Amino acid sequence: MFDGGIGPITVSTLKEAEFFLKGGFRDILYAVSIVPSKCRRVHDLMRAGMRPDDPVVMAITRLLHESPGANFLGYLTHAGDSYNCPNISAIKKHAVQERDAVVKCAEAAQEIGITPKIVSMGSTPTATFSEDLTGIDEVRAGVFTFQDLFQANLGVCQTGDIALSVLTTVISHKKDQNRIIIDAGGMALSKDRGTAGQKNDHKFGLVCTVESGEVIDDLIVESANQEHGIITSRSGRDIDFSRYPIGRLLSILPNHVCMTAAAHDEYHIYGNKQEILHIWHRCHGW
Amino acid sequence: MFDGGIGPITVSTLKEAEFFLKGGFRDILYAVSIVPSKCRRVHDLMRAGMRPDDPVVMAITRLLHESPGANFLGYLTHAGDSYNCPNISAIKKHAVQERDAVVKCAEAAQEIGITPKIVSMGSTPTATFSEDLTGIDEVRAGVFTFQDLFQANLGVCQTGDIALSVLTTVISHKKDQNRIIIDAGGMALSKDRGTAGQKNDHKFGLVCTVESGEVIDDLIVESANQEHGIITSRSGRDIDFSRYPIGRLLSILPNHVCMTAAAHDEYHIYGNKQEILHIWHRCHGW
Repeated sequence: MFDGGIGPITVSTLKEAEFFLKGGFRDILYAVSIVPSKCRRVHDLMRAGMRPDDPVVMAITRLLHESPGANFLGYLTHAGDSYNCPNISAIKKHAVQERDAVVKCAEAAQEIGITPKIVSMGSTPTATFSEDLTGIDEVRAGVFTFQDLFQANLGVCQTGDIALSVLTTVISHKKDQNRIIIDAGGMALSKDRGTAGQKNDHKFGLVCTVESGEVIDDLIVESANQEHGIITSRSGRDIDFSRYPIGRLLSILPNHVCMTAAAHDEYHIYGNKQEILHIWHRCHGW
Repeated sequence: MFDGGIGPITVSTLKEAEFFLKGGFRDILYAVSIVPSKCRRVHDLMRAGMRPDDPVVMAITRLLHESPGANFLGYLTHAGDSYNCPNISAIKKHAVQERDAVVKCAEAAQEIGITPKIVSMGSTPTATFSEDLTGIDEVRAGVFTFQDLFQANLGVCQTGDIALSVLTTVISHKKDQNRIIIDAGGMALSKDRGTAGQKNDHKFGLVCTVESGEVIDDLIVESANQEHGIITSRSGRDIDFSRYPIGRLLSILPNHVCMTAAAHDEYHIYGNKQEILHIWHRCHGW
């Protein structure tokens, strides 16, 4: 995916930073608050995030700029709240807000004689629907790589765009309960219920054929025990069990791809004939 | 923990079975439905579970007993529904029901001239409160090893009995929102919200001191982003931030220990002086 690349990349654990450094990356952004031992001077001012108009932003800018131990690079924001937008028009407004916030910080710094090298924004929804990136040097969009049902609900993608699914096997039928049991439960799918508060609650995931990758009727993973998942039909219509014999492979689209991917050690990249083209290794832990 | 042991042990993935086999275990129960390739003869009768009075139970018993390719061992049940009991008295009733169900199967087999070698029951709640195990050869209780907040809510344990917690660091303060940010989010705690439907909803976990392991006031992990957790007070009372400076270690009790443990590669076993006594490796995957 990043053959020979050196970045930029945004990481959220030091383990990831080490992983990508080892892979040749040299432009790595660690987007998590640091502890005092790493930067004593900004200790008292540290925040998980600041409002762009908070005077403390310029105070920190000055402090870092003047510090012999630090190298002030610029401003970064992440529109986490874009995940709560009800529609695309709201995401577009959010993208403007996000850009304005961080660009205004850069302008305020210019006014006190400090030129930021990087002005960075990003979230998958705002990255997708931004119409004006003037003043922005870097857009960080993570879920973007694979997409998921949460993003599909936001209107950021279609279910057909979701590039990651969990391969599972039908292991039992409960015909009297209109249920199919599969060998993917919470451990394989994660227990993320991010779509619970959205317009389409997909419970623990949508069910697709392995062959075409298309969503099957209204089949849904209704619940996820540790190693079992339970598929039923959303409408309550009778499932045609003969189409899903024991041993049949299915694939499940994830609610939140970050959580689901974290349950697995490898990505298996499939070709059109379901042959494995590549295996990508993941980085676990902290 | 199982120094030199050879079992019995119950596993839910073949990877776990291989892991314990390698570790010397010889009595391993794989408690998941098998696919046809493994046992063609029972294909058409396979179920995720059967009611003990279903005539198909004895039909399968006969089939396995008479099959040259299979070795019928006995009956197994798991009182998954004991997780929904509102109180201890209901769990006790459930334990009786569970024992009766599986023992009655064994008796019915005796009546048709087949003697089961193993009659097995188990779930952490019923294992804890069973008062009569007559006719039972094996009790399987998994969460029992560590306990968790879900079990504490059921009355199976006290929070002080929970033997697993996630070590985390305070990385930021949001005083205006009465929030502490920690570096343990959904990736470290899991997104399991098993306590959501119980009498005490602990959101993503209770907060304890590292030194004494005691729950701190009414602090709770209110939400879990990917790598961040947000602690607040359940009552809304002001947090005394001076007690939780940036860099301070805290430990978080898990909702569902199976899901939380799966996020980590190792267990670190602590002594009374917070020294690491042992490191236990985990088995991941399928």
